[in-house]
Amino acid sequence: MGENIVVIGAVALGPKAACRCKRLNPDARVVLLDRGARISYGGCGIPYYVSGDVSDADELQSTSFHMLRDVAFFRDTKDIEARPRTEALSIDRAKKTVRVRQLDTGVEEDLPYDKLVLATGSSPRALPIAGADLPGVSAVADLDAAIKIREGLTAGQVGSAVIVGAGFIGLEMAVALADMWGIETTVVEYAPLILPTVLSPTLARIIQLHMEEKGVRFRLAAQVTAVQGDGKAERVVVKGPGGEETIDADMVIMSVGVTPNSGLAKAAGLEVSPRGGIVIDEEMRTSDPDIFAGGDCAEIKNLVTGQNFFLPLGSLANRQGRVIGDNLCGLHSRFPGAAGAWCVKLFEQNASGVGLTLEGARRAGLDAVSVHVSQFDRAHFYPDKDFMYLELVAERGTGRVLGVQGVSAMGDALVGRIGAVAALMPHRPTVTDLSLLELPYSPPFSSAMDIVNMLGNVGENILTGRNESVDPLEFARLFADRDNPELFFLDCRELGNAQTYLEKYPGLWHHIPQGQLAGRLGEVPRDRRVVVLCNSGARSYEALLTMRHAGFTNVVNVAGGVASLSAVGADPKAQ
Amino acid sequence: MGENIVVIGAVALGPKAACRCKRLNPDARVVLLDRGARISYGGCGIPYYVSGDVSDADELQSTSFHMLRDVAFFRDTKDIEARPRTEALSIDRAKKTVRVRQLDTGVEEDLPYDKLVLATGSSPRALPIAGADLPGVSAVADLDAAIKIREGLTAGQVGSAVIVGAGFIGLEMAVALADMWGIETTVVEYAPLILPTVLSPTLARIIQLHMEEKGVRFRLAAQVTAVQGDGKAERVVVKGPGGEETIDADMVIMSVGVTPNSGLAKAAGLEVSPRGGIVIDEEMRTSDPDIFAGGDCAEIKNLVTGQNFFLPLGSLANRQGRVIGDNLCGLHSRFPGAAGAWCVKLFEQNASGVGLTLEGARRAGLDAVSVHVSQFDRAHFYPDKDFMYLELVAERGTGRVLGVQGVSAMGDALVGRIGAVAALMPHRPTVTDLSLLELPYSPPFSSAMDIVNMLGNVGENILTGRNESVDPLEFARLFADRDNPELFFLDCRELGNAQTYLEKYPGLWHHIPQGQLAGRLGEVPRDRRVVVLCNSGARSYEALLTMRHAGFTNVVNVAGGVASLSAVGADPKAQ
Repeated sequence: MGENIVVIGAVALGPKAACRCKRLNPDARVVLLDRGARISYGGCGIPYYVSGDVSDADELQSTSFHMLRDVAFFRDTKDIEARPRTEALSIDRAKKTVRVRQLDTGVEEDLPYDKLVLATGSSPRALPIAGADLPGVSAVADLDAAIKIREGLTAGQVGSAVIVGAGFIGLEMAVALADMWGIETTVVEYAPLILPTVLSPTLARIIQLHMEEKGVRFRLAAQVTAVQGDGKAERVVVKGPGGEETIDADMVIMSVGVTPNSGLAKAAGLEVSPRGGIVIDEEMRTSDPDIFAGGDCAEIKNLVTGQNFFLPLGSLANRQGRVIGDNLCGLHSRFPGAAGAWCVKLFEQNASGVGLTLEGARRAGLDAVSVHVSQFDRAHFYPDKDFMYLELVAERGTGRVLGVQGVSAMGDALVGRIGAVAALMPHRPTVTDLSLLELPYSPPFSSAMDIVNMLGNVGENILTGRNESVDPLEFARLFADRDNPELFFLDCRELGNAQTYLEKYPGLWHHIPQGQLAGRLGEVPRDRRVVVLCNSGARSYEALLTMRHAGFTNVVNVAGGVASLSAVGADPKAQ
Repeated sequence: MGENIVVIGAVALGPKAACRCKRLNPDARVVLLDRGARISYGGCGIPYYVSGDVSDADELQSTSFHMLRDVAFFRDTKDIEARPRTEALSIDRAKKTVRVRQLDTGVEEDLPYDKLVLATGSSPRALPIAGADLPGVSAVADLDAAIKIREGLTAGQVGSAVIVGAGFIGLEMAVALADMWGIETTVVEYAPLILPTVLSPTLARIIQLHMEEKGVRFRLAAQVTAVQGDGKAERVVVKGPGGEETIDADMVIMSVGVTPNSGLAKAAGLEVSPRGGIVIDEEMRTSDPDIFAGGDCAEIKNLVTGQNFFLPLGSLANRQGRVIGDNLCGLHSRFPGAAGAWCVKLFEQNASGVGLTLEGARRAGLDAVSVHVSQFDRAHFYPDKDFMYLELVAERGTGRVLGVQGVSAMGDALVGRIGAVAALMPHRPTVTDLSLLELPYSPPFSSAMDIVNMLGNVGENILTGRNESVDPLEFARLFADRDNPELFFLDCRELGNAQTYLEKYPGLWHHIPQGQLAGRLGEVPRDRRVVVLCNSGARSYEALLTMRHAGFTNVVNVAGGVASLSAVGADPKAQ
């Protein structure tokens, strides 16, 4: 079984596949090559290296117990031949060889393989704008690029920065620059919201407000049209809803997504999707059964839509690497796909999600509805707690859960909830499954009726038509139109909560505590749209039911109540 | 649909069922009665009230937004007639009436019902020992009992306490007494470990050591045989492995489990299990289709064993209450059962789990094996992190996951992992499902290969025989026998880690870095049992493979490595 295994790409999936293969079959001869000088590092840690949280780049390339994963490490501890600074030029599938060039010497040779692994990763997408090649403009392509960025910061050359793209990396880099280095930072995003592919407008707004409080500026629904400067980046031109403006920027970081590195595969005649990802089967084989691919260069199955998709995440790469390692040795391990679980920490706020957003679901042709809830992340009587905001995206008719997203200052607590939903996603859960979901319970960790259960309960009430809600941003639009005589805003909290609103909006803000509503329905007009709200959306749901039972037909409940309005900056008290 | 609904028991499930029923069917007439003066409170919060974390008992009985859930609350906001201090004496199923007595007036009456709900809860088990009725001896039966305990504490009458039973409530009470009130606290437990039904000896030891550091004393494998004192509790007699001793105790708290309150059901001829739980179907109906039961008084299906079991948890009661509320109104909602997810915070340590322990699995007749791993709870290069210790219990042959338990100082992070496994449990996951489990990933929250994935990987390696390990307590027993010439202890870390051990145990502690092992196998005896260890168990697994490949047949790897040895107080360096 002394097969020759060649692995192209040595960042995440490549080393994992190589090491697992060697553990299963110590006689295999494994060569692990990479264009870069650094191998086997945690690319997801780059923003924490740029911020200085991680003091040395070597830490990203080390084991938990501080051994640097370099050529000697792979040779001595893994019996693997690692070749950094080595580029794979072409694959001869008939002869089963890979043509490689040592980048420092220029020497080329043909490496024979019995089995080949493509772990070629992805590359940052480039924006075709003037000045994109000026010094000071960069992408967070790899650890070497990150080291250059941090050198610039350390040298004190950067006073202002513009980040193009409000995805995960863009926002994490914004935190790194603004938080630790005190740099005037502006994020420019083409979509009208941050994290546009993974969050709803409501949840995105909560994060955006928090980042703005921390000093990061945003230009949304905007694009950078040029980078300008005298021999280096000094400012960018931004075109947004309000016209064109120029923003100072000694540093410009492009983070507008990545594309799979599939050129080598394509040139070798392997199947590549129209989106550019290498096509693989469940055993992670390409269209050539002796060639495997995985990680950022390949497409996997989306467990929610059933379609293939491109999901460049280090965690997937690691798990896929083990599957490839198995299959290199004749096992038949499967990688079933992913639902798309993610999380991100941004200053003291956190966001996490899995599956589709409402917009994503609709784009996938699904008849979807979304549900917003707010609740304490632990027992409400427990001293140390905070609000959590969760949203459910579900399919009408089937009640199937298509996605759940959330925001909370309690990051681990939020990620735990999303992790539980993520674990369920391959089993096509319904909202009833969330209602009944069994989670560990104790007051320091959760409520007896956990927020995930509550999300299922509310989702079921919405899907069956028992409840009808507007989300916090919809409320904001309605309240901006509050002089409209067709609207009737009804606060069903106790007077102590409502008083300020009554004084601030006389004649427009109406108040009947939920406990008195059944006896005071005569005060509520039947010919107007009644927008009823409380602190969390729970009592206002009871009020809605009372009104419906009395024959009211046009009542909506503000999802998440004042807790959510406040989080998105739409609490009428504060306006 | 103006049916009469009577709900007996108004703590957790009762109010939930009543409120859901009223929301679905506002015309129902619902009476909610309870023996106690306080209704609808969070019983799980009692230890936090006793500690003083929760300042006022009313907080446990209030909504998230500080409305006290009393008779007026239920009348005004829920249109439910709540009757505290009212005992249900008997059920006449033929006439469909419940005989009740108002405890303050003694007045009795028959309440007619169309549908009846039994939410009678459970009662603390009493120990039949001398002095158990002395003042100062109590159980944490309900909020009134807790109020009395706290009054005693506030009055400064308590200097020392003994808690009988090291289950959840016993340990939470120990924290409450020792932490906030500075009381000399001893916990006496019949089993040889704390949390004996839910944790392995190894994980229990980690928690115990932490609680001992905080000042709590333990007497394990011991029992209280008498409470003594002059008109009130002053001391207890404890019989343990070392003989009999007397321990001062102004306060004695009995927390040796609870038994279901099923007397009323039994007297009415409803089916009750030999263990005393009311028997219900998946729609939570008793053997009388017009009578529902749930919460602590009923048995539910254990999703791991397939047998019925008794699991008194507030979170289950709440979810079951909603199911009963549905079914009272003619829906057909199902409660499928539970895998038994739990969590507990004890000072700055936390434990959580789901499913069976190794011992529990063996008692259930399953051929089970357990796996212990240690890993950082987040990316190892991320600055703010801590160790997490997880254990997997899996079935040989099928590879089915029977349970997962863990301990970590990062409570939410631990509970999140267990929650993900809990979500999977109804789907009968295998260790491969854990290997592939998709969880949200970002360095501030997890490793790219999450500890749950790692647990699956190690589990698979153990089940397939590729890896063979001893857990930290087994290592401790082996190391205590270190002069045994059949044992060979091999440290495969770098010299910097091993140096102290080599100096402390010359001739007994052997050292070959894993990276040099393949070339130095001649130094390792083939006729002895090689116990190989590193910091976490990962490198020692590589070393084990190297030795096996070279024909060694008697090698075991120390699961969790020195990280776990240190956590259970078995690091040879510290002895």
